[in-house]
Amino acid sequence: MRPNNVNAIVAAIGPLDAQWIEKARARTAQLVMPPRALGRLHDIAERCCAIQATLHPSLDRKAVVVMAGDHGIAAEGVSAFPQAVTGAMVRTFLTGGAGINAIARHAGAQVWVVDMGIIPDIDPQGVPGGHQLKVSKIGPGTASFLRGPAMSRDQAEAALLAGFNHAADLFEAGVQVLGTGDMGIANTTSSAAIGAVLTGASLDEMVGRGTGIDDQSLARKKTVIAQGIERNRPDAGDGVELLAKLGGFEIGGIAGLILAGACYRRPVVVDGFISTAGALIAHALCPLVSDYCFAGHQSEEPGHGLMLRHLGLAPILNLGMRLGEGTGGALAMTIMQGAVRMFKEVMTFEEAGVAEKNR
Amino acid sequence: MRPNNVNAIVAAIGPLDAQWIEKARARTAQLVMPPRALGRLHDIAERCCAIQATLHPSLDRKAVVVMAGDHGIAAEGVSAFPQAVTGAMVRTFLTGGAGINAIARHAGAQVWVVDMGIIPDIDPQGVPGGHQLKVSKIGPGTASFLRGPAMSRDQAEAALLAGFNHAADLFEAGVQVLGTGDMGIANTTSSAAIGAVLTGASLDEMVGRGTGIDDQSLARKKTVIAQGIERNRPDAGDGVELLAKLGGFEIGGIAGLILAGACYRRPVVVDGFISTAGALIAHALCPLVSDYCFAGHQSEEPGHGLMLRHLGLAPILNLGMRLGEGTGGALAMTIMQGAVRMFKEVMTFEEAGVAEKNR
Repeated sequence: MRPNNVNAIVAAIGPLDAQWIEKARARTAQLVMPPRALGRLHDIAERCCAIQATLHPSLDRKAVVVMAGDHGIAAEGVSAFPQAVTGAMVRTFLTGGAGINAIARHAGAQVWVVDMGIIPDIDPQGVPGGHQLKVSKIGPGTASFLRGPAMSRDQAEAALLAGFNHAADLFEAGVQVLGTGDMGIANTTSSAAIGAVLTGASLDEMVGRGTGIDDQSLARKKTVIAQGIERNRPDAGDGVELLAKLGGFEIGGIAGLILAGACYRRPVVVDGFISTAGALIAHALCPLVSDYCFAGHQSEEPGHGLMLRHLGLAPILNLGMRLGEGTGGALAMTIMQGAVRMFKEVMTFEEAGVAEKNR
Repeated sequence: MRPNNVNAIVAAIGPLDAQWIEKARARTAQLVMPPRALGRLHDIAERCCAIQATLHPSLDRKAVVVMAGDHGIAAEGVSAFPQAVTGAMVRTFLTGGAGINAIARHAGAQVWVVDMGIIPDIDPQGVPGGHQLKVSKIGPGTASFLRGPAMSRDQAEAALLAGFNHAADLFEAGVQVLGTGDMGIANTTSSAAIGAVLTGASLDEMVGRGTGIDDQSLARKKTVIAQGIERNRPDAGDGVELLAKLGGFEIGGIAGLILAGACYRRPVVVDGFISTAGALIAHALCPLVSDYCFAGHQSEEPGHGLMLRHLGLAPILNLGMRLGEGTGGALAMTIMQGAVRMFKEVMTFEEAGVAEKNR
């Protein structure tokens, strides 16, 4: 039976079985190549073995869940784009014309979009591609965390649970690896606030230009975040409170996806800055989630590396990407699948009849 | 008509058309995302446009050519593996059981293997998978460059021309992107020698552990390279001479592949340390080749970054790989293809009906 509250989800998460890592490393050592000559590809494949508890891991069935939400903080002039872009981009995801659609097609991943709380109401029945839209609207955008909590504690729990359930549905339908994605104008502001509180980094280290704001807006963004944190005084030890005070509905949804990966023992590929803020919330609730997460890429947002270090994750790609939507995670899935195929398909020295090392 | 000597090949290579880069950048600016939000994916796609002279580039038809050769210098104790492994691995490539086979299958790339000069004679008709083997044997392994030139100048020219012709055959058959690969016990020794002469780096910077030698063998490897360079005194301005004195037959073959990419205006994905030594030879003959090359990855060999800098190339992946065979290049092709699909498939702001930036 599925856990139906956050405490029950966290209680259902266990550590990786180190025995599977050892078994997988033993197979790697037999592959017809110098010891661990494919570097991190071995690490990726072995962790997939341990997560899926098998020496025949599969990442064939892939999905990306793009969590969308609007942000009250957008009214403070922290983004280069108008708030209406959130809903407009959700429509673009459904018609297949956004960056995540192209990259997910390339990676062979389904794209699902969840309305976690955007301002417009989009009827899945009434738009092209609407079958890919799930509606779990917690509210019509968050409140501005400059003036109080972004959402109530109940809403934060509901966002986490909604994300968990969407991922659980996909895993139960056979999805083997899940990528996280986000859409929400001003959500780097919320993510940077969460990142600063949880990593302890300064705002100068953590806050970046998001979609491309100028120096003046960047200064304002830092001030807004500082004031919002001061106003809300969130407890860094309480992930639900942190999400409620500084978060976005979509960030809660992403945290729920990540909790589900750990619960269902499926690898989750975390995308960039916003997705990693979601991972930080999940990690605050249950540090074991890191074992089930892969960092798809290193974002251009300056604080992202600090967040990943806090989670103990090393990015797979580093290509100067800063789009979000799940693009970096979806692209990294292609590398992960290559790693897994290599693990399963390369012959052993014995099978190939090749001599091992001289000494 | 195909050029049939090295001078004619070099004369047939022209620069990239900067107009195509501009046209491609103009399309990127219209894509429904913040300006250049996918970072290096845009650069990759735009360069593919310019190389193929189109706004509809395609990397659908991919091939990897694994150039194999033996090295006289292997007798000096510079490798962790016995020389017979070269031929044994060629057989493994043909049966589909090596790292490059698994990763090329994942990338959707054909694998071709060329006997540029391995010691054993493998009859393509007489082995499983032999249809993937091309024989252009320049000789049964090179001579030790510790005692004189590794090969004659005529052999060096023949190796370059053989590589060029194999790639030309593939391009004429419709291959749209080519990956380079290598196999040859002791070929990091030859590659480090070429890298040191062409980049001016010290042997401490350039020489690494290859397949995994210990400290004592690493010291010997450096001494052997220093003595080989001293003995041969190659002219860094003469790529053919450099190849003849320090090179391997397979390194010449790789340089030929790269010259062909520039000549036929097809992107070539250069793999790791040995392939980049081949690229250095091609670049010494014709610096324009860099415009047509992509660096698949950053190898664990310490000198590789210095070689790439000399060529003006930034690696696509950095995953601690050091296998060779073309694995890093083949894996990077999946990223390049993602970049190209993104370029072609993402809607414009206008098509998507999304508002552009506020300011």
